[in-house]
Amino acid sequence: MPSPTIRRLDVASPVPADIDIANSVEPLPIADIAAELGLRPEHYDLYGKYKAKVLLAVLDELKAQQDGYYVVVGGITPTPLGEGKSTTTVGLCQALGAFLDKKVVTCLRQPSQGPTFGIKGGAAGGGYSQVIPMDEFNLHLTGDIHAITAANNLLAAAIDTRIFHENSQSDKGLFNRLCPANKEGKRHFADVMLRRLTKLGISKTDPNELTPDEIRRFARLDIDPESITWRRVMDVNDRFLRKITIGQGPEEKGMVRETGFDISVASEIMAILALTTSLADMRERLGRMVIGNSKSGEPITADDLGVGGALTVLMKDAIHPTLMQTLEGTPVLVHAGPFANIAHGNSSIVADKIALKLVGKGGFVVTEAGFGADIGTEKFMDIKCRYSRLVPQCAIIVATIRALKMHGGGPEVVAGKPLDHAYVSENVALVEAGCVNLAKHISNTGSYGVNVVVAINKFASDTEAEMNAVRSAAMVAGAFDAVICTHHAHGGKGAVELGLAVQRACESQAEPLKFLYPLESSIKEKIESIAKFYGASGVEYSEQAEKQIEMYTKQGFSNLPICMAKTQYSFSHVPSMKGAPTGFVLPIRDVRASIGAGFIYPLVGTMSTMPGLPTRPCFYEIDVDTATGKVMGLS
Amino acid sequence: MPSPTIRRLDVASPVPADIDIANSVEPLPIADIAAELGLRPEHYDLYGKYKAKVLLAVLDELKAQQDGYYVVVGGITPTPLGEGKSTTTVGLCQALGAFLDKKVVTCLRQPSQGPTFGIKGGAAGGGYSQVIPMDEFNLHLTGDIHAITAANNLLAAAIDTRIFHENSQSDKGLFNRLCPANKEGKRHFADVMLRRLTKLGISKTDPNELTPDEIRRFARLDIDPESITWRRVMDVNDRFLRKITIGQGPEEKGMVRETGFDISVASEIMAILALTTSLADMRERLGRMVIGNSKSGEPITADDLGVGGALTVLMKDAIHPTLMQTLEGTPVLVHAGPFANIAHGNSSIVADKIALKLVGKGGFVVTEAGFGADIGTEKFMDIKCRYSRLVPQCAIIVATIRALKMHGGGPEVVAGKPLDHAYVSENVALVEAGCVNLAKHISNTGSYGVNVVVAINKFASDTEAEMNAVRSAAMVAGAFDAVICTHHAHGGKGAVELGLAVQRACESQAEPLKFLYPLESSIKEKIESIAKFYGASGVEYSEQAEKQIEMYTKQGFSNLPICMAKTQYSFSHVPSMKGAPTGFVLPIRDVRASIGAGFIYPLVGTMSTMPGLPTRPCFYEIDVDTATGKVMGLS
Repeated sequence: MPSPTIRRLDVASPVPADIDIANSVEPLPIADIAAELGLRPEHYDLYGKYKAKVLLAVLDELKAQQDGYYVVVGGITPTPLGEGKSTTTVGLCQALGAFLDKKVVTCLRQPSQGPTFGIKGGAAGGGYSQVIPMDEFNLHLTGDIHAITAANNLLAAAIDTRIFHENSQSDKGLFNRLCPANKEGKRHFADVMLRRLTKLGISKTDPNELTPDEIRRFARLDIDPESITWRRVMDVNDRFLRKITIGQGPEEKGMVRETGFDISVASEIMAILALTTSLADMRERLGRMVIGNSKSGEPITADDLGVGGALTVLMKDAIHPTLMQTLEGTPVLVHAGPFANIAHGNSSIVADKIALKLVGKGGFVVTEAGFGADIGTEKFMDIKCRYSRLVPQCAIIVATIRALKMHGGGPEVVAGKPLDHAYVSENVALVEAGCVNLAKHISNTGSYGVNVVVAINKFASDTEAEMNAVRSAAMVAGAFDAVICTHHAHGGKGAVELGLAVQRACESQAEPLKFLYPLESSIKEKIESIAKFYGASGVEYSEQAEKQIEMYTKQGFSNLPICMAKTQYSFSHVPSMKGAPTGFVLPIRDVRASIGAGFIYPLVGTMSTMPGLPTRPCFYEIDVDTATGKVMGLS
Repeated sequence: MPSPTIRRLDVASPVPADIDIANSVEPLPIADIAAELGLRPEHYDLYGKYKAKVLLAVLDELKAQQDGYYVVVGGITPTPLGEGKSTTTVGLCQALGAFLDKKVVTCLRQPSQGPTFGIKGGAAGGGYSQVIPMDEFNLHLTGDIHAITAANNLLAAAIDTRIFHENSQSDKGLFNRLCPANKEGKRHFADVMLRRLTKLGISKTDPNELTPDEIRRFARLDIDPESITWRRVMDVNDRFLRKITIGQGPEEKGMVRETGFDISVASEIMAILALTTSLADMRERLGRMVIGNSKSGEPITADDLGVGGALTVLMKDAIHPTLMQTLEGTPVLVHAGPFANIAHGNSSIVADKIALKLVGKGGFVVTEAGFGADIGTEKFMDIKCRYSRLVPQCAIIVATIRALKMHGGGPEVVAGKPLDHAYVSENVALVEAGCVNLAKHISNTGSYGVNVVVAINKFASDTEAEMNAVRSAAMVAGAFDAVICTHHAHGGKGAVELGLAVQRACESQAEPLKFLYPLESSIKEKIESIAKFYGASGVEYSEQAEKQIEMYTKQGFSNLPICMAKTQYSFSHVPSMKGAPTGFVLPIRDVRASIGAGFIYPLVGTMSTMPGLPTRPCFYEIDVDTATGKVMGLS
């Protein structure tokens, strides 16, 4: 019997605009969705009528419960238009929940507001497979990204201000300000200072007992401005902040420095939100984030700056995932939203864990990994599953005829420009040629030991023959199954076949998860494993990359997993190399470390960490109907 | 009969730390507070268990209801430690609601997170007169300031990117990108573009009909980079962003520009949030914000950039005030939070209006204005009341013995340093000498035609004789009454006398509100009226100020009210001139305009719009107890 929150859609043809579909369905009170999941009011905090934060404490309460099946959704190498990965994730869940009577939770990432107002538009799915209310999904949601922005930038301010104050004060002056005497003449260390003392090997807890040398070591972080890797962030596509000079005000006494802003979702704090497993774990990760080095080469952390606790306070509500609903009334957890090209690109471990307990044995949790299987899925397996200890039973690869034609040699696809004729008329040969890309994603994903199901996301102009070509190629490449889906046009009903295939795949999965590399390998060995996985014949390190690898190894960080920052438009570092290129040498331009999040990230070629706005951004169409309060023009 | 949500406090002596008092009281579910105010669940959106956004639609529903009494709280010229204005506002409301059985709503500003983590700490009141939960009050609240940051910075990104795209494209190229042809070859203007066409006097609605000259005028904003007054904002004390150079990335093609960040609460969008009266009004105000001029001297607005609608979408939830509660269970509306020195410093018109309807006839709304009566109260009367058409019946001036001693010639008071002996031992002569400051605040405030009640906020070391001296001086200066209050130590019970005095003042008030200047006066005449009000003998304009006044007058903006950006530490522009200085010449360094908010703001001397962090910021003490989730160390 379907759950009482399920609703059936009246689908129109041709498919109306996303916002019109979203606005045509009255969402259920989120409390009803929560109740259907077995959540009681004390388990969540409402944020308006259609969003609720599910409190992490639920995990403790449900710890005896068995987990449901765990399904990850990746894709082939996409065109700049996207191949409907979120849409497929939502459509599959609508099928499982509304048509196959399964307990199901969709785990999605929160989109960045930058692209929402820029080129891309929203990310709530599309057609009859969407999360609603789509404006609330695409905008502030429950404030998590804003909290990340605030925390990231508080740390940035703490860094520059600390250098400024150290520049103008003696060791003793600094110490007296850091540990001022109270009215009774007593000094005390703040708790966070004890962390720094421990790191320095000083076991004293009375500030008055420190020797002058200990005072110097404690109070003077001696940050090397050249070494600072921490940048400011903003959730806006503001290209003019990519590279800036700060400190030019007269009061800053000439302490100028070149730095820049990234988009907020690229912040290490976003990566921590996605990878953390508890409030206590988040506190530790935030405290050990490394912002740069001292002049003598010691890594300097947020806790050295005294700010790890305050960052946790800013992030304490963000740790709870947000419950929303699909068009057909199935539950969705939205949480974290790192970009998959420049970060690890997966939604949060805590959302997946809560979801797995809520659906229980025989239920399904479908979580999305960003971009292609070379990017999001690789990071899902080697980083996210490594930290969560969760094991997926099934991996989905979303493919479109459009993208496969591009890989087969079709003309360039450019966002905002009309599609070439090749993409809207039958061309089986082009599709078949492009299937090399799909095949490599299948074999790569399968190498982790999971069953791979290919979801062919059907567009109106796709033909039977084209889709059959994809099915055959997928099966030859080792897919467990390959299914044509029409959830964009039909909602969950269009993904019932996919749902059944996923169910079979999950039920027949027996292998343990096989990581691509062991953590104990050196940084270079790990990078080379991933490069080989992409199809590269070798790796080339810049001088800067060599230097950083040496430094991180020396600092004891070499046993972390690797998070490659690489273009999503090719298995290689060159966006124009489509299909399944081989023989290329992967250039590592630089290597950075997110010690709090827990990974080393090599930069493959040049990757922008701050998008820009086009001449006519999406915002031109966006407004509020001031009579009804409804948002117009979001896409 | 007191309302069922009222709770009695067990007060301890000496008064414990603010956070300990706040944590010792279990807040009521905010739904209970809402119900007691007569609000039904469809009137508000919950944000967790202890906060709710009261929807603006309530105003429409209650429009037939009579307003309650309207009381504004200002203060004397403060020390850097603050004189307890928020605390008195809360204490008075606790007295009215919990002891005098009146319907009452407190209207407070949302504090900036910058100072919370910097020097000042939180702003939820103090002692036994606080808003709870105080951590939620002081941190993200319901995301309004984050929304302002996002909107402000989207506009900033739109400005620089537009200049960038105009620099590299022909008129026709620009136009084709702004109005691209769709699949059928049709072009259309986005709604926001029609606003620009109207402004240009072009009545055509079909893009294909524009002449080349009209295309150029429409598509090329031709912004003069030197004229841009719009700055980016961040809700963090980040002094290194005060002056920066942007656009130094290689892709920005050398289009570098000097600019800077202000703290978010200084954004014009915050001023709009505080002064707007409806969603439709906010849409218009956001669209007409002027960001600078074209090279030919025409003001360029957010709507010219196509972004007014998107800004409104970002701000559409922020327009609803947030309901919270005091320690004694009386209701509080928190909304908007502009700084009173660099902005108008008052909470929102919509919060006050909703509150006046909710308390109804005979009830009380107590709203706080920032800093002294020269700053917050002047702007309350001449800007806020002018836009809201509301009339206060009573103005409170909060005074402390400490601040009066400073005005009488006591030694400098410095935040973070122990108080001089003079401030903690009896010195009636010093207090009497300092009462010139109080007297001037009384006569200035009284000149608007309202009854002035002085609230003497008693500290433990203040003596009877000192307080009596203040009472006498206040009555001589024309106060309606002057009352000693102990709400910090005793909660509402300590402000019952104040509550009775306020009630008498409200009931006997009959005069209409007398503004300080008519809007029709010239910009200079209005500035000079305010300067005289401060005690200045004249005004001196910089060349830049003269130029700007001339420009704004020419652009047709001279009939707006004036919002002076002036130090809060003196009636004059010199923080060290205490008491009631006269004969000084007020220097106007620059004049800017907030056309959307609706005021001209002269800068008196140098005012920082971005605070900094001290060597040991408040954040050192702030952390989460990861076992309970409670915030520790907020002050």
